[in-house]
Amino acid sequence: MIRFECDYTDGCAPEVLKALTETNSLNTVGYGNDEFCGMAKEKIKTVCKCPQAEVHFAVGGTQANTIIISSVLRPYEGVVCCESGHINVHETGAIEATGHKVLALPAVNGKLTPRGLEKYLSVPTNEHEVKPGMVYISQPTETGTLYRAEELESIYAVCQKYSVPLFVDGARLAYALGAKANDVSLPFLAKNCDIFYIGGTKCGALFGEAMVFTNSDLAYNIRHMIKRHGALLAKGRLLGVQFATLFTDDLYTELGNRAMALAEKVKEGLKEAGVELYYDSPTNQIFPVFEMGALEKLQKTYSFEFIADLGDKKAMRICTGWSTKEEHVDMLIRDIKEAV
Amino acid sequence: MIRFECDYTDGCAPEVLKALTETNSLNTVGYGNDEFCGMAKEKIKTVCKCPQAEVHFAVGGTQANTIIISSVLRPYEGVVCCESGHINVHETGAIEATGHKVLALPAVNGKLTPRGLEKYLSVPTNEHEVKPGMVYISQPTETGTLYRAEELESIYAVCQKYSVPLFVDGARLAYALGAKANDVSLPFLAKNCDIFYIGGTKCGALFGEAMVFTNSDLAYNIRHMIKRHGALLAKGRLLGVQFATLFTDDLYTELGNRAMALAEKVKEGLKEAGVELYYDSPTNQIFPVFEMGALEKLQKTYSFEFIADLGDKKAMRICTGWSTKEEHVDMLIRDIKEAV
Amino acid sequence: MIRFECDYTDGCAPEVLKALTETNSLNTVGYGNDEFCGMAKEKIKTVCKCPQAEVHFAVGGTQANTIIISSVLRPYEGVVCCESGHINVHETGAIEATGHKVLALPAVNGKLTPRGLEKYLSVPTNEHEVKPGMVYISQPTETGTLYRAEELESIYAVCQKYSVPLFVDGARLAYALGAKANDVSLPFLAKNCDIFYIGGTKCGALFGEAMVFTNSDLAYNIRHMIKRHGALLAKGRLLGVQFATLFTDDLYTELGNRAMALAEKVKEGLKEAGVELYYDSPTNQIFPVFEMGALEKLQKTYSFEFIADLGDKKAMRICTGWSTKEEHVDMLIRDIKEAV
Amino acid sequence: MIRFECDYTDGCAPEVLKALTETNSLNTVGYGNDEFCGMAKEKIKTVCKCPQAEVHFAVGGTQANTIIISSVLRPYEGVVCCESGHINVHETGAIEATGHKVLALPAVNGKLTPRGLEKYLSVPTNEHEVKPGMVYISQPTETGTLYRAEELESIYAVCQKYSVPLFVDGARLAYALGAKANDVSLPFLAKNCDIFYIGGTKCGALFGEAMVFTNSDLAYNIRHMIKRHGALLAKGRLLGVQFATLFTDDLYTELGNRAMALAEKVKEGLKEAGVELYYDSPTNQIFPVFEMGALEKLQKTYSFEFIADLGDKKAMRICTGWSTKEEHVDMLIRDIKEAV
Repeated sequence: MIRFECDYTDGCAPEVLKALTETNSLNTVGYGNDEFCGMAKEKIKTVCKCPQAEVHFAVGGTQANTIIISSVLRPYEGVVCCESGHINVHETGAIEATGHKVLALPAVNGKLTPRGLEKYLSVPTNEHEVKPGMVYISQPTETGTLYRAEELESIYAVCQKYSVPLFVDGARLAYALGAKANDVSLPFLAKNCDIFYIGGTKCGALFGEAMVFTNSDLAYNIRHMIKRHGALLAKGRLLGVQFATLFTDDLYTELGNRAMALAEKVKEGLKEAGVELYYDSPTNQIFPVFEMGALEKLQKTYSFEFIADLGDKKAMRICTGWSTKEEHVDMLIRDIKEAV
Repeated sequence: MIRFECDYTDGCAPEVLKALTETNSLNTVGYGNDEFCGMAKEKIKTVCKCPQAEVHFAVGGTQANTIIISSVLRPYEGVVCCESGHINVHETGAIEATGHKVLALPAVNGKLTPRGLEKYLSVPTNEHEVKPGMVYISQPTETGTLYRAEELESIYAVCQKYSVPLFVDGARLAYALGAKANDVSLPFLAKNCDIFYIGGTKCGALFGEAMVFTNSDLAYNIRHMIKRHGALLAKGRLLGVQFATLFTDDLYTELGNRAMALAEKVKEGLKEAGVELYYDSPTNQIFPVFEMGALEKLQKTYSFEFIADLGDKKAMRICTGWSTKEEHVDMLIRDIKEAV
Repeated sequence: MIRFECDYTDGCAPEVLKALTETNSLNTVGYGNDEFCGMAKEKIKTVCKCPQAEVHFAVGGTQANTIIISSVLRPYEGVVCCESGHINVHETGAIEATGHKVLALPAVNGKLTPRGLEKYLSVPTNEHEVKPGMVYISQPTETGTLYRAEELESIYAVCQKYSVPLFVDGARLAYALGAKANDVSLPFLAKNCDIFYIGGTKCGALFGEAMVFTNSDLAYNIRHMIKRHGALLAKGRLLGVQFATLFTDDLYTELGNRAMALAEKVKEGLKEAGVELYYDSPTNQIFPVFEMGALEKLQKTYSFEFIADLGDKKAMRICTGWSTKEEHVDMLIRDIKEAV
Repeated sequence: MIRFECDYTDGCAPEVLKALTETNSLNTVGYGNDEFCGMAKEKIKTVCKCPQAEVHFAVGGTQANTIIISSVLRPYEGVVCCESGHINVHETGAIEATGHKVLALPAVNGKLTPRGLEKYLSVPTNEHEVKPGMVYISQPTETGTLYRAEELESIYAVCQKYSVPLFVDGARLAYALGAKANDVSLPFLAKNCDIFYIGGTKCGALFGEAMVFTNSDLAYNIRHMIKRHGALLAKGRLLGVQFATLFTDDLYTELGNRAMALAEKVKEGLKEAGVELYYDSPTNQIFPVFEMGALEKLQKTYSFEFIADLGDKKAMRICTGWSTKEEHVDMLIRDIKEAV
């Protein structure tokens, strides 16, 4: 089975594995107070051109989301996101488990709009309602779309107008950065939000996310929050080693670019084969609609993720990732053309 | 100022006040273990024709909702309700404060539809999603509409098919029972849900709600939950005395009928005055749309609740209640006719 | 049965009942925004000589405790109290339900000591431990003892040294104020803590507690917290009417004094009868130790609360309260003398 | 610096690293549904002689503790442990964050006693108190002591008598199993509790804990709980690969034995040097008391963990682990003998 269902089917990039292997028998202090974490933090601040930031690590995305959101919100506040936002649909209530409501707004192409957000935030609330205390977006979004620089800027302006911090979930950030359509660089992102995280798990690391508090006031006592959420890794250096490697010699960029080149190839192939798309995504998640017969044929060799049942057709998800092999993409395109 | 903004502007029905006064200097055990609570529970089970039920009291509606919902749900489960449902919009996140997501479905006339509910519950969930563990509706709804007996029965059948308990919030139940359009009696309601509560606060009591667990298994250790939510009233008998009075000589019914007769009079008057309605409600909440000039004139004498800004008009809420005076209704209608 | 088991066996003081009756048919706005609440708040600030305070009401003590504690603490902080503290032993985990640990220290006579507190707070914590974020004491304590002015001042000095707010639970405050041994007045209390509450439920009201934020910064958005905890009473004026009455013509003081005079009489009687005390308490809770035979005889007429099994003896609790009748106390003493 | 402060200063055992490296470029499904997790679960059930068990993985100990405890308890229940228990002192309130009180009992040698536990559980609780819903112990304990087979059996008998599940935290289980004084095997442990976890992080893995539900009813919908706590690792196979390796060719036993042989050597050396011990521990945590001068000299070369300030002396912790080098132990003993 050749797996295209997601971008975390493999271990980690060879460079990361090499670094983990080389440091394996070193003796260091625990809980992320080691020199590798220190190095990784410096590298990230440098690449983001954000020297005042505070950087902390978590093992996975659910952890990063709950730590950040529950650390910033007051008990009676909620986090605004769009209806299709990851924290609204795919976290088994992890946000609510911290006592906070997810305030879901309608999405346009999987995104919050500055206008929709402003309309929502401008309505005064009273003590019978949850107060919006943070805005959450992801780059790319749950459906693979991208916020343009201009959109991000406008959304951040709205957030600042209403004094509500903006948090950007970057679980797949490498694939946003590598997308042809992207015009949001890391430094631009850092300037246009209060907190974001750089995804490692889906982008070349074995596991790990780097949380960047560009507004370092919001990181007050954050290590207490990380521990309380079971996310203070005993061997914290594992996260430092991985992120230091990903941000050496532009590896993070390179991994994203590689995946996006193959994603473009898949999209091109689907287009040539006349396969329609359920959502049009500029990043590494691709949502083809297959007729049942063709799909069944393909699923003998390839795994995809199920997205929606459309009667006699099904929308599926194909992901490329840093580990995708070009020969597998070529085979897939050939087989799709044959099957449909 | 004559207040029409809500149905809790007054104290309690004279009969209730009399009972509280007469029992004031009695000596009883605390926390609801007294004979008045016992009597009230028996009366409620009798009027609901539900001898197997377990009845418990709470001071207010938010308490009743959080106690019931958080007692029934497993941590990873959520409560399904319609988007306009009270627990979704007017509880300041009290449900989420107990760790549970409110799973909001589109509303038709402020109601869940059996078909919409079935469509939602029939989709299997996995461990990345909140599991629906309870269905919440209210009778009447947040916008004053009513579930017909047939609808309630269908919704309960769907709930039973998917083994999800049904909970009916009856904060204004007296006004549902007294509505001309109503065909859901207390015994019918008791037969068609697992838990409901009979509102006292808005229906003649000083305060208090009677939670009826028709499925008494769901009340397991419920007194622990009541206490943990700060709802185990030290002088619990105050709730017993009030509900015993409300369910003596059909007082609860009478109070509802009285309010509904006046509500019909208001609606008739609005119709005669040519005032349009924002929602059409068969119960004691009435939602007229006034032009600004007329509204300002009326607001010198009467208070209404603001519902929506419609540009040069405003939708407001007028409530009648058990304490509304007919002469005030007559004045209001006369003044509306003059103002518009 | 003549009930001496607690101080909430009756309804409310006649003056309070009269005020509730006289205002019953008035029309007011809901949720505590009415003039009675306004009046009550002013009276309380005046009697506490604390004009900068913010006053809010809750229905019961568990509510007051959870609202105040969870509003002040950051998620990773806990509340320090002594082992026998009410929030540590008699709240069914209501504090933990808000996500916070109760950090229990050894008690001396039911009290925290300034020295013990300082020893605890002076130990630096790290991110693996709960950070002390508030100190909770009660006046009188769970076992009826009192903090002397000097002790309170010292405890508050320690709290201020370590920047940890001090909260004083005054569920039975009237009985502290009325105790012969007491030297802590309301203004002194207000000056020596950040938040306290004045108990109504056990001290003459039907129900209700007045939360006094002498440090009004700590009351930021407190109405959202009150609502989220199900404690924003729809007919909020009921609390205003009651507290305005309790703080008119020194009624609160008078009720406390009356109860304490009878408590002294009971203690005198017990002494004369040679009954030993389990704890020695200067307030309205008295803890006699009875031999089984005597106890059984007395329990035919009187109810006490069980405290501890001492083999062939039992420690019980006798409470006087604002509603205790002198003739009942006389009978009780006579019967005790006879029984033991 | 040669680190003796804890048993997680290194990466992972070479065998584990080899397995991770060899499987790194394999393509598998996510979230622990892969064949390596399947294999690891089978191996664990076999070695525990507990075929009916359900095994699940978590990344770290705080996660394992919160998932297990919050999954088993009803909202109003708490978890009993001894005062020095890890969840009571070193989790930054992670258990309370799930809404549950930790009910701390006095410890004898860092352990609950069957008698103390029975005394506690035999007292009936009421709705004003937290109900004990689980008992937590750890093997070895926070201070390195061990439950003897007989003690464990007695504790489990008490738990069963009161229908309260027993959970054993085995973060350092390898070092219990390898201790000379130990008579609790994995099958015996599995027979004498309802849930336990086998620590990987401190015992040879990069990270990871294997939760064994010997009573598989308690694992109902546990994957939802794992996800909700941010512990459902995307590349779940990393845990499977590691535990499959640790339970191949008795590696887990071997790693524990190796660490314990060196721990015995350290203890022998301390004894010869006349160094007193703060606690006497039969496992890999050793608690010597050093005079300041000696300590400062040693700390130029070695790191220890600070335990307690004893005036002119300090209690420290020395840990051996699977990765400790014999030459380092020899150097340490020599230098201690010289310094003291």
